[in-house]
Amino acid sequence: MPPQPGEAGRASLPAGDPVVADAVVIGAGPVGLFQVFELGLQDIRAHVIDALPHVGGQPVQLYPDKLIYDVPGLPVCTGQELADALARQCAPFSPTFHLGQTVTGLSRMPDGRFLLETSAQVRLLATTVFIAAGVGAFEPRRLKVESLDSFEGTQLFHHASQAGPLAGRDVIVVGDDDHAIGVALELAERQEERPHSVTLMHRRDSFRADAHVVSRMRDCCQQGRMRFVAGQLTGAGTKGGILNTVQVGLSDGTQSILPADILLVLQGLSPRLGPLTGWGLAMEHKLLVVDTATFATSEPGIFAVGDINTYPGKRKLLVCGFHECTLAAFAAASLIHPERPVTLEYTTSSSRLHALLGVSSGR
Amino acid sequence: MPPQPGEAGRASLPAGDPVVADAVVIGAGPVGLFQVFELGLQDIRAHVIDALPHVGGQPVQLYPDKLIYDVPGLPVCTGQELADALARQCAPFSPTFHLGQTVTGLSRMPDGRFLLETSAQVRLLATTVFIAAGVGAFEPRRLKVESLDSFEGTQLFHHASQAGPLAGRDVIVVGDDDHAIGVALELAERQEERPHSVTLMHRRDSFRADAHVVSRMRDCCQQGRMRFVAGQLTGAGTKGGILNTVQVGLSDGTQSILPADILLVLQGLSPRLGPLTGWGLAMEHKLLVVDTATFATSEPGIFAVGDINTYPGKRKLLVCGFHECTLAAFAAASLIHPERPVTLEYTTSSSRLHALLGVSSGR
Repeated sequence: MPPQPGEAGRASLPAGDPVVADAVVIGAGPVGLFQVFELGLQDIRAHVIDALPHVGGQPVQLYPDKLIYDVPGLPVCTGQELADALARQCAPFSPTFHLGQTVTGLSRMPDGRFLLETSAQVRLLATTVFIAAGVGAFEPRRLKVESLDSFEGTQLFHHASQAGPLAGRDVIVVGDDDHAIGVALELAERQEERPHSVTLMHRRDSFRADAHVVSRMRDCCQQGRMRFVAGQLTGAGTKGGILNTVQVGLSDGTQSILPADILLVLQGLSPRLGPLTGWGLAMEHKLLVVDTATFATSEPGIFAVGDINTYPGKRKLLVCGFHECTLAAFAAASLIHPERPVTLEYTTSSSRLHALLGVSSGR
Repeated sequence: MPPQPGEAGRASLPAGDPVVADAVVIGAGPVGLFQVFELGLQDIRAHVIDALPHVGGQPVQLYPDKLIYDVPGLPVCTGQELADALARQCAPFSPTFHLGQTVTGLSRMPDGRFLLETSAQVRLLATTVFIAAGVGAFEPRRLKVESLDSFEGTQLFHHASQAGPLAGRDVIVVGDDDHAIGVALELAERQEERPHSVTLMHRRDSFRADAHVVSRMRDCCQQGRMRFVAGQLTGAGTKGGILNTVQVGLSDGTQSILPADILLVLQGLSPRLGPLTGWGLAMEHKLLVVDTATFATSEPGIFAVGDINTYPGKRKLLVCGFHECTLAAFAAASLIHPERPVTLEYTTSSSRLHALLGVSSGR
């Protein structure tokens, strides 16, 4: 059985026995999802890996409610609506998602297949790989304070939900957007399970957040329920290996020490190309060079589609990515099923495609 | 003022004074409509020519109710729904449609622009031309009987609506599909303005029509309200230059003569590439060769998008046509507005694009 997303997938996989896959798609954004669909029409099932804990990629992460006007046949839709529609569209092909994890290694095996390993120890042995990674894997923007690194996962977290109960603790929230300020406000305004102290920290006294949210935060500070510190974390103080204070470089140039049990570092997400730059694929300006007939990279069997590729005339638009993954699926079909002719059939009329899609033969 | 569709356009155009256009799109199918949209995002207005009397092209003409499953972000839609959505999408850019007419001539002027002439005597002087003609212009499938040609438009018609009042006439309907049989039935079942006789003719006694429609037709024949003749028209009999009989080669090999005032030839539509094969553009297997960076043909300023073009890897799919017209619009922008840099902006965030689309700057 192929691994399921998240913990289940990890737990069921013996280290020595990777899951065999015809196709692995790296990236569950709009283009990655449509890649799954186009592979499905070629009767190829896909595994999909994404750093985010949900499908939909950049549109869902960065602009779920913003309106998109240039998807052909959709005069207007939001990023979330587009992602939802694409997820429904590829659902008949039952992709196996490995979410909240990044690809940490990719290497070619002696038999020509690719071994992929993820940050969640999933191992996949794939005939073809589709890099639909957009601008890279979205990862939390980290503090660059070495002495705090070792507390990640115990006292330093990038998601508020991972921090456990916070009653009685000294909590520092680092960040300046709606989400970071909202988390600090929720803690400060609690009636029960209240932290001992709530500090919002940002390097200066200006915010990338809604004016209303900022105003609520200032009210809370005036009422003494929380405080705001304009400064940057510079170091850790510990007792018995446990973090109990942080050093802060204040915006006025002085230093301060604050009590701290828990650090919530909510500075947003930043895309990283990560290890794929080390896979030996031909690149230009940090983009993967592809052949426009197949969207193959310089490595046979590895395709690149969407914003991560480059070719003469390339524009970073969804409509281009959708075309690219369509031609890549045709090219992959002849690699995965060399015994079958790859023919063009239409979803309006082909009973073979209707069977694959799980629909009756139409009206 | 640019010409309006149909008669108005024809009437307002002095022969010596063509309408000046930045862009002319040949073909109002899905790809032609999206070409208009992508040109609009580049601040370029388009004229659109199509042989059919409506927009939407092949999907609307051949399968308006069939379900399409492979347009990205539209898990399922009909051909008509897709065409309607694309027409709405390009509406903000107010294209000028010239419908029910074909391009009869295209030539390059000394100043580098293109002079196009249509079968409705519309003349356009265009900086760029986009051939989005699919499999060609849809034209009525004609009889191949020379002696009947001269009656076209007076006693022989390809659209029932063009035939005028039919009361008291001997009407022959040639065809075997739902539409042809439906027209014959409507005439036969009339309570008023009844024709003198109604004959359905098809070369053999089997039909590409709904069983229910065929059964109604046979009932009508049994009731003596119409007749069916299995045979083919072979010649005309006239009196004073007016058609009054036709010769028919019956399916049993014998000949017959039938009274005939009006011939409705409803044998469906057939695509024709028409004169574009004579425009000197590089072709392969009756397809226009294009550069995949710009989708330009061998003639600078003329682009080809959708099913009519060919390049390495080409697949005749809507998703590919949509990509092609996007890159073609970028390439055209630098020809039409050489003074402006062509930049990539996003409809989610660009206030310039929002102004062009006529929408407020989002939520």
